[in-house]
Formats: sequence, C-alpha cells, structure tokens
Amino acid sequence: MVTIERDATSSELRHDWLSDRWVIMAPQRTARPFDFVRHETSEVDPSDCPFCAGNEHLTPDAVLSYGPGGEDSDDNWAVRVVPNKFPAVTECYPDPGFGVPSESAATEKSSINLFRRKDLTGGHEVIVESPRHLNSISQLSHAEVCLVFRAYRDRLRYWLEERGACYAVVFKNVGPEAGASLAHTHSQLIATSLLPPDVKRAADRMEQYMQAEGACLFCDLIQEEIEQKVRVVEQTPDFIAVCPFASRVPSLLTIYPTKHMAQFEQLDQDLLDQLAWLTHRSVRRIENCYPNAAYNFVIHTAPGCERHENSFHWRMELFPRLTKLAGFEWGSDCFINPLTPEEAARNLRNAGV
Amino acid sequence: MVTIERDATSSELRHDWLSDRWVIMAPQRTARPFDFVRHETSEVDPSDCPFCAGNEHLTPDAVLSYGPGGEDSDDNWAVRVVPNKFPAVTECYPDPGFGVPSESAATEKSSINLFRRKDLTGGHEVIVESPRHLNSISQLSHAEVCLVFRAYRDRLRYWLEERGACYAVVFKNVGPEAGASLAHTHSQLIATSLLPPDVKRAADRMEQYMQAEGACLFCDLIQEEIEQKVRVVEQTPDFIAVCPFASRVPSLLTIYPTKHMAQFEQLDQDLLDQLAWLTHRSVRRIENCYPNAAYNFVIHTAPGCERHENSFHWRMELFPRLTKLAGFEWGSDCFINPLTPEEAARNLRNAGV
Repeated sequence: MVTIERDATSSELRHDWLSDRWVIMAPQRTARPFDFVRHETSEVDPSDCPFCAGNEHLTPDAVLSYGPGGEDSDDNWAVRVVPNKFPAVTECYPDPGFGVPSESAATEKSSINLFRRKDLTGGHEVIVESPRHLNSISQLSHAEVCLVFRAYRDRLRYWLEERGACYAVVFKNVGPEAGASLAHTHSQLIATSLLPPDVKRAADRMEQYMQAEGACLFCDLIQEEIEQKVRVVEQTPDFIAVCPFASRVPSLLTIYPTKHMAQFEQLDQDLLDQLAWLTHRSVRRIENCYPNAAYNFVIHTAPGCERHENSFHWRMELFPRLTKLAGFEWGSDCFINPLTPEEAARNLRNAGV
Repeated sequence: MVTIERDATSSELRHDWLSDRWVIMAPQRTARPFDFVRHETSEVDPSDCPFCAGNEHLTPDAVLSYGPGGEDSDDNWAVRVVPNKFPAVTECYPDPGFGVPSESAATEKSSINLFRRKDLTGGHEVIVESPRHLNSISQLSHAEVCLVFRAYRDRLRYWLEERGACYAVVFKNVGPEAGASLAHTHSQLIATSLLPPDVKRAADRMEQYMQAEGACLFCDLIQEEIEQKVRVVEQTPDFIAVCPFASRVPSLLTIYPTKHMAQFEQLDQDLLDQLAWLTHRSVRRIENCYPNAAYNFVIHTAPGCERHENSFHWRMELFPRLTKLAGFEWGSDCFINPLTPEEAARNLRNAGV
C-alpha cells in the first residue's frame, strides 16, 4: 500500500478513470478567508404544501402509492409517486411512448448543423417520501426508507422495462442550494429517449476496462478500496460506501453493491432494505458533519438501450453542497476540491449516526 | 430564417456542437412554486480587506501594478496583480517552471492505473481591479475597466508566451453563489501544465469543423447569428454579444471578436478598450435584469501547447447564477435551462445600460 497523505500546502492532480477527468486536490485552499455572512434559508408557510397528506388534489393523480405495509393504498399512503407538474421533459403518459424523435433540418450553408433541435419525450415523476412535512430522508424510520427505495426500483422497472426508455435516473435534491424548490422530502425520476453523452461515455469506459482487463472496473476498484482502507466509510454484507479517490467535490460518498450488478432495479427486497439502511446512515453522517447542508444523491443504473450487463456496475452518489461551481470549473470542467477523500472518509467514519 | 419560438409548455433538446452536449430547454419549469425564502448575503466588516489600498501588506508582493494612466506604479496603483495567497496550484515563481510533472506508478494488479496522481505546478494570480472597496466591475469607470483588460492580456502573455504554460484562463467570480470568497472586485488567472480534457475537446472540435467545412466554426456561427438576429444582444465594430443557441444556463452571454482571432492576448489597446466597453455594458444589462445576482465570466483563449491558430477562435462567457446544478445535471451532465436564449436575448437587449 502506498502512502497517500501529502503536504497540506501543495496541490496534486488525481485522475478519475471512469470519466477520464483530472481533479485538483488543493487542501491549502480551506484556509482562505471568507467575506460573506451566510444566512440560513427559511421556509415559507407549509400549509399549502402539495406533498402533504390532505393536499393530494394539488398534484396530478398518483401513478403509484404504497401504504405503510407496502400494500397499494390511495387513502392511507406512506409513499406516493406523481407526475411532475412542471416537467423537464414532454410527458408521454400513457402513450405515444418513445420512438425516434423528430429533428430539425439544417438551416445554414454548412453540412454541419450548428442549430440542431429535437423533441424530448419521457417521464418526470416525483416520489413523495412521507405524508408528513419532513425535510430530509434521515427523519424517516427504517421501514419508511425501505418503501422509498422500493418505489425507486418499481418506477425504474416501469420506465426501463415496460416503457423501453433509453435512460432513467433517480435523484434527490435537498435544500435550495442543491436545486430543490420544495422542502417536503421527495426524490425525482426522469426517463428519456436521450442517452446523455456523459452517461454513454461512462458505459463505454466500463466496457473498455472489461476488454482490457477481463474484469469489471468497479469490482476491481472495490477490492482495491477494501485493501487500502483509507477511503472506506462503511461496509455491509452486500454494499460499500467509499469516498472516491478523484472525488470532484468534498465529502462525496459512492455506494456500490459489492457483488457485480448492472441494474439497480434488479434488487430484491432484502437488498433494498440493506441499501436503505446504509443510505440512511450515510445521510446522517453527512448531516452530522455539516449541519443544515444541502445535499444530493443520484442513482446511476445501466441505460435501457445499452445494457452492458457484464461491464456496467450500478452505483449511487451522495454529496453535500459545500463548494460552488466557480469560473475556473466552468471554463475547464476541471474541479478544485479542497478536501482530500481520505480526510473526508475519516470525518464521515467518525461522525455519529 | 426558421421560426424558433415554441409552445411554452413543451421541452426541446438543443445540441451544442462545440461540446457535443445536448441541453434541455424547458420554459414551462419557470412556473413552478418555490418554497424557500432567499436572504441576501451581507458582507463582513471591510476594514481588513486585503485588496483595499493601504492593506497591500496583507497580500504577497505585486507581480504587476498599473497607475491610473497605465504607467507602472507601486504606490498609486489602479490595478494590481498578486499571487493568490491560497493557490489551487503549487506555485512555480520564478522557477523551476513547468516541464513534465512526476506521476505516481500503478499500484494495483491491473495494467490500468485506477489511482493516477500527478504534481500540479503553475500560477494562480489575483487581479485586484480597484484600490477602492467596490463589488462589481460595473462600478468602475470605462478607463478603469480598460486597465483591467490590459492586465488580463499582459498576464496571459506572461504565462503563455514567456513561461510556456500549456493552459491559462482568466475568470471572475462575483458573489458567494458564484464561488467568490472575497467581495472586493477582482478576477483570477490560473496557468498550468495541464490541458483540461474539456478544453482539449473544444479545441479538437474547432479543428474538426475546420477540416470538414474549410472555415472557422465561430466565424460561421457569428455570420448565422447576425442573419438570424434573435439571439444577438449587442454588436460593436469588432465584437458581438450573443446568447448561444444551446446555452446550458439562463441568460449566458458569449462575446466573440467578429474577425477571426485565436488568442485574446493578441488584442491591441484599441480592441481591448472596445471589449472593455462591451463587457461593462453586458454586466450592467445582467445586473439590471437580475439585481444582486452573482455572476461569473471566463475568457477562453487558445491553449499554449496546441495553438490551432486557424481553427481556434477565442471567446468570453458571462453569466448570472440563477439556477443550481441539481441531481439530474450531476448524474447526466445534461443541463435543464428554463429560459430560452431567444427570450434571454430579448430581456437583455431591453435592459437599460
């Protein structure tokens, strides 16, 4: 094992093999002065919150709702999934479905079209995680988080398997700094006919690793992380939470299944429960380290149109919003991270849960 | 000319040819409710601001300082450039300079190194734009902004021409939401031996366009924008400010030289003055549309190590921070923009300056 600690006054570049991006680790930047007084955001009157029990008429009709015991239940729901009233994609409920989107013709003289446009259809759903007006998934009971994860799985199955979406992603924005517009604890799912180039690139890199090494990239990486220990935060029989070596932002945690698995939506109830437990604890670690911090998580499951069962390994990323994307990152797509993942993992391990 | 307005309730994908990224235009999302009360950030006591006249001892020694008439002047400075006290890169003043950085050896069994590390050397400088405690470049006089742009040019020349940096970028973060930690009006320059992959990709795409079309990408694009008119905000004899067709964020403005030019640092004083005038007006347009909004700008000049004189066209991007990078963007690198560039350009044109 190599020593990874460095002089805290010098920078180093670290390479993320998956995205082929370099990240600048600059721990000396944490010492710089800060001129601004931060004010905590407060919340407006929650009585007209569209996600609270009793206000169901403020949202479109539910496409899924589970009662506290996991039974289908419209009246006594514990988790409820509704189409987003302000969708980022043009809805295709219940049809005409995906198919080849129409595309604009070239309008200029060159053979390359600099003004390409396409229709975008798909689904954009909200997973309401509780009938009560809570603000974080960490405030739910274990049983409630399990139901939320079951809803993720079932809606991913619907979009990827029944509807044939090319891409589907589950994500969570908590707090306005993380892009949330509503405070009531919820997640979102977007399914589209578009495979974003970055997602395709990641799938291609996993396939490339498989061709070169005859093994799955993340299966190899997880073994190495377990041996090196320094970036591991917590492990359960089937999952591991790690601060990745070339993390673009401070205190980002990646949760992987330790056994190879391409699709999140293949998880059975036992594995879902175990993942729900680890996620709940990971969110609490982050909240204990950074009280009131906004956070996001994202579940990266295999694309529907390019399965790569052998090389694609699903993962979930969870991260507090501690730094801002500034001009340098915008100009270069090269991130400056002031906290090494080894230090972040140490802090998160030591945070009570 | 094609009609580009759409139904404000449907989404469309637009392709940015330069980055080969798709952007989701979703104007219907501007109508969604917002649960949080935003508080304006306030500033701490500015009396110990390291950038104010009289506090020069709080920063490292200046590497450049111009008096009000553009003369070298340490005592009566109008613009002052100092090494960043908390640099993102390990300083290489005055030597040993760049050269091949040392790199970590592979430590794991596979032939692919999943834990690559490199030293990062270069320069990280702060351009202090005024001896007075002002918060935005829009508060400077035209003559003062001209001096700031001259300092950008001279420091880019130093790093790219004298020191042989592979990459150098000038950028500006205004307000904590844009990544600023200090309020006193300033910009930054980072020069490194690393060419970020995204910057290389953009240079390669410009070269690819040149090969396919026998012309410069942005020279062609500017002609098309002038014909289509709808995204042009302002034009001067030698520059144009446009809201780009596939803008990833709302109200982003790109300023291009209308005649082909690869390197910002080739600008003569007349062109610098004209650009300073247009930038000053563009910032005021943004501030009038979005009072107190944080903003960034970034100058993309040709890399030092891959000049591509014929195909690379320098540009400057300027944008207010109105949306947050949320889970979906993080998961897909595909941005959702709730304001079409045509609407943004109309608003910016109509904003008083």
